[in-house]
Amino acid sequence: MSNVELVANRYGKHRVRLMKVTRHPHGNEVFEWTVQVLLKGDFETVHTLGDNSKVLATDTMKNTVYSVARTSKASTPEVYATELVDFILSRNPQVSSANVNIEAHLWKRLRVDGKDHPDTFMRGSAEVQTTHVERGRDGVLHVTSGLSGLNLLKTANSAFAGFLRDSLTTLPDTQDRVFGTVVQAEWVYSDTNIDFDAVRATTRETLLKTFANHVSLSVQQTLYQMAEDAINAVPAISEIEIAMPNKHCLLIDLSRFGQDNPNEIFVPTDEPHGYIEARIRRK
Amino acid sequence: MSNVELVANRYGKHRVRLMKVTRHPHGNEVFEWTVQVLLKGDFETVHTLGDNSKVLATDTMKNTVYSVARTSKASTPEVYATELVDFILSRNPQVSSANVNIEAHLWKRLRVDGKDHPDTFMRGSAEVQTTHVERGRDGVLHVTSGLSGLNLLKTANSAFAGFLRDSLTTLPDTQDRVFGTVVQAEWVYSDTNIDFDAVRATTRETLLKTFANHVSLSVQQTLYQMAEDAINAVPAISEIEIAMPNKHCLLIDLSRFGQDNPNEIFVPTDEPHGYIEARIRRK
Amino acid sequence: MSNVELVANRYGKHRVRLMKVTRHPHGNEVFEWTVQVLLKGDFETVHTLGDNSKVLATDTMKNTVYSVARTSKASTPEVYATELVDFILSRNPQVSSANVNIEAHLWKRLRVDGKDHPDTFMRGSAEVQTTHVERGRDGVLHVTSGLSGLNLLKTANSAFAGFLRDSLTTLPDTQDRVFGTVVQAEWVYSDTNIDFDAVRATTRETLLKTFANHVSLSVQQTLYQMAEDAINAVPAISEIEIAMPNKHCLLIDLSRFGQDNPNEIFVPTDEPHGYIEARIRRK
Amino acid sequence: MSNVELVANRYGKHRVRLMKVTRHPHGNEVFEWTVQVLLKGDFETVHTLGDNSKVLATDTMKNTVYSVARTSKASTPEVYATELVDFILSRNPQVSSANVNIEAHLWKRLRVDGKDHPDTFMRGSAEVQTTHVERGRDGVLHVTSGLSGLNLLKTANSAFAGFLRDSLTTLPDTQDRVFGTVVQAEWVYSDTNIDFDAVRATTRETLLKTFANHVSLSVQQTLYQMAEDAINAVPAISEIEIAMPNKHCLLIDLSRFGQDNPNEIFVPTDEPHGYIEARIRRK
Repeated sequence: MSNVELVANRYGKHRVRLMKVTRHPHGNEVFEWTVQVLLKGDFETVHTLGDNSKVLATDTMKNTVYSVARTSKASTPEVYATELVDFILSRNPQVSSANVNIEAHLWKRLRVDGKDHPDTFMRGSAEVQTTHVERGRDGVLHVTSGLSGLNLLKTANSAFAGFLRDSLTTLPDTQDRVFGTVVQAEWVYSDTNIDFDAVRATTRETLLKTFANHVSLSVQQTLYQMAEDAINAVPAISEIEIAMPNKHCLLIDLSRFGQDNPNEIFVPTDEPHGYIEARIRRK
Repeated sequence: MSNVELVANRYGKHRVRLMKVTRHPHGNEVFEWTVQVLLKGDFETVHTLGDNSKVLATDTMKNTVYSVARTSKASTPEVYATELVDFILSRNPQVSSANVNIEAHLWKRLRVDGKDHPDTFMRGSAEVQTTHVERGRDGVLHVTSGLSGLNLLKTANSAFAGFLRDSLTTLPDTQDRVFGTVVQAEWVYSDTNIDFDAVRATTRETLLKTFANHVSLSVQQTLYQMAEDAINAVPAISEIEIAMPNKHCLLIDLSRFGQDNPNEIFVPTDEPHGYIEARIRRK
Repeated sequence: MSNVELVANRYGKHRVRLMKVTRHPHGNEVFEWTVQVLLKGDFETVHTLGDNSKVLATDTMKNTVYSVARTSKASTPEVYATELVDFILSRNPQVSSANVNIEAHLWKRLRVDGKDHPDTFMRGSAEVQTTHVERGRDGVLHVTSGLSGLNLLKTANSAFAGFLRDSLTTLPDTQDRVFGTVVQAEWVYSDTNIDFDAVRATTRETLLKTFANHVSLSVQQTLYQMAEDAINAVPAISEIEIAMPNKHCLLIDLSRFGQDNPNEIFVPTDEPHGYIEARIRRK
Repeated sequence: MSNVELVANRYGKHRVRLMKVTRHPHGNEVFEWTVQVLLKGDFETVHTLGDNSKVLATDTMKNTVYSVARTSKASTPEVYATELVDFILSRNPQVSSANVNIEAHLWKRLRVDGKDHPDTFMRGSAEVQTTHVERGRDGVLHVTSGLSGLNLLKTANSAFAGFLRDSLTTLPDTQDRVFGTVVQAEWVYSDTNIDFDAVRATTRETLLKTFANHVSLSVQQTLYQMAEDAINAVPAISEIEIAMPNKHCLLIDLSRFGQDNPNEIFVPTDEPHGYIEARIRRK
């Protein structure tokens, strides 16, 4: 008899890349999504006995992504992910919960001679729009949306002072630093009967606006304000988690060369970097 | 009055790179670690009021990494991480728990003319050795060790057959596939008063040996057997989590060119890939 | 006596990251450049004898990047690179030619409430603007400008048909494919007494417009037309080299599932990819 | 009439990934190669007229890679690349020269219980073995071999002193630094009728041994010595080009914390880095 037990397990297909081009009289629409499918269920004997009879092959999941994309009318990753989750649940009684995660990549319609081009697109920034959709056999749908890779830079109104000083502290107080970050955010919906794209746009605009206008005393304070403002701006959001690295831009000491440096010449760095995360919810 | 509340928060310094060279009569030793520090504690007003008085600056954390490394006699990342956690806890009453994560990169001593060279090293594979150490104010020390980036290939004794077939299934049964994966594993110690390097070596050897010798009916089954064997081989391990993507090597159809392909010519692919994870514990 | 000889050598500093923030009454300007310095000269005995007396340390090059950036009034990488080249040449008679290459990263001013924000920026796409500036002791200045990482997608008016068919050809003719590419271009100026930013903008606009409007029979034909149109649009350009990978978007065969796929569902791929490059010059 | 002309052009397929598993009584052999095909030839009207009749589709090149791999008996990338070049040239009179470049990735046979395992492999380091093979209609075969990604660290016998000091120099002289680099080398054969694997092994061993044993006064001097020793060790090599970045390991100043740092605690950095390249040939 074995002296070990299976506590948890999950499996699926990662990095299923999907591009859908839809054709309209006025031109084409395109989206590019990277889809991840993860399943939990009655898979213990797969592990312990090598019995594959209940295994939905991950290759079949890949096929499912494309087949469902063909019939789907969804225009948001949230709705398509829900369709995919429900399609898999309906055909696989051995699955106890299905989870679909999508990263949507930005393709911007090209402007040519001041007009939108009907069928040519340019890749936007490294920012991706994300969604996580999960449903279990209790029928409850969990949908979160988010974004990552949103690279921002604040060149004024950012201070960091009055922090704890001990024998290993060398950082001076500053009233005016360059604050670079790459925002990752994920929000939970209390209501999933919404226009996800519209809500996403409002949330994103709010995060950007607060980042820009906040008179920042710390990354923590700005992050918290962004979260608070997003929750206040979007009734459907019940909770938001934001992670913001502090991608340090270090002021170069030019006094060694007889030059001043009035907060003008910096070296941006990738490592090490500060890292701040917080979860804020509606009371 | 605000209608939001702070549910959770954490902050710290990521990607603090440390190289330590120690010099001995017979030659040098070197390790290269990437250190991450994450703290929880009494930081609510940092977020809500911009009060930084209790903030240990992440820049100070970076200095601490280097200062503690100088005085440390530790030869394993687990022991050094514990020292760092305890150093920070002892000086910062506002911190309720400190977490240090380390990735150790492999430098192999160079062999020259059949002998170990005293002071020259070659970077090993992309595999990293990991540890997560956390202690809270209850004093309990949590230590896990692990590895990631361990790229393995099994060219025999790997089958995948008898799985569920539905209208979207196109994958044929196979008794003989190429099984490529990148192992990520993390194990929990029931005892932390051990020789971490020795235990790590035994765990790793066991994982490798089982992967090599297992007659595999699925990734799941091999993964489970690796976990079971590791727990059986190492008394100090109470639980292990393993994630193994299935990095597909696809057999090329050469019949279109009048050629056979007796399991010989493959295209290795990165995406999409299967993904299997499971957590197994000692009963 | 040695039986080998030094044929060529070059050295310098790579990946010197520079961020310059300039402050104006109406707001801030920011640029972020990654600078590379490469020198040739009288360095034979450095290699053969270990004589470092003529070596400008690469650490000094790094300092020079920052010091010159402080005094520079340049607003284009081309002009700043020229200043840097000339600064190094003037102080180092042992240097026979100096080469400075810059990658400029895009920071777009944030729009908030429909207005340009004075001091907050968002990172643009992965596109980088490049320049290569070189001057030797003959005094002749060589300046090229370019761009890379310009990710484009053409969802109509792209065919590929009538190509050679042999016993290993399986690709069908297509009159309507999705054409994805990442443009890399570099153009040579016949005149360096120009407004580099204005010329760059015109060149880039022309490349984009032709890519969008071209009725493409092949990547080669579109690339050539882009080059021809750029040379015609910008008198200061004498020659242009363009490289355009063909990042294949493969049509999914849904007939296996009883579905059609009228050029709608694709899998975008990174590897393998076609690769086309050509150099076109003004006659 | 057009006022531009096509100066040069090249096209092909990049990143064609090939894994070949050969099965023997005692176990399996495996190699993994990433293949690149690039052709020049009579392709002007492809560009100017959209005439594809002479175009060997890059998709066909991909098929050719796999088909030739099946029939090939080659055990080195150099020989296989030559077969591929000649296969393409023989079937495509419109091609004036064919170029095949291969990156070979390291799979090491796993050791289990002190013995070589017959069919399981572990990925080696990031080092890749490279080859470039080209033949034109003159029939002359050009073969180079090389390596890249060879990450080395020298913790003793590396100095850098006596270099030029100017007003922007801040780097102190050092007699004892940590010297980290990632070697890229490519050597030209004067004879291609050789055992490429054996020659490659000798070349690589020589580069490693000299790097390890050299008492280094600069990266340049060590690089030159490595090149000279490789040429002396291998009669078939006529010329070698080596590029060695200086991946700086910076000594941490611990005096701020009342601690010494006797060349023990460093921060390894990726950027900026020094860069040294030289080409050395047999006289």
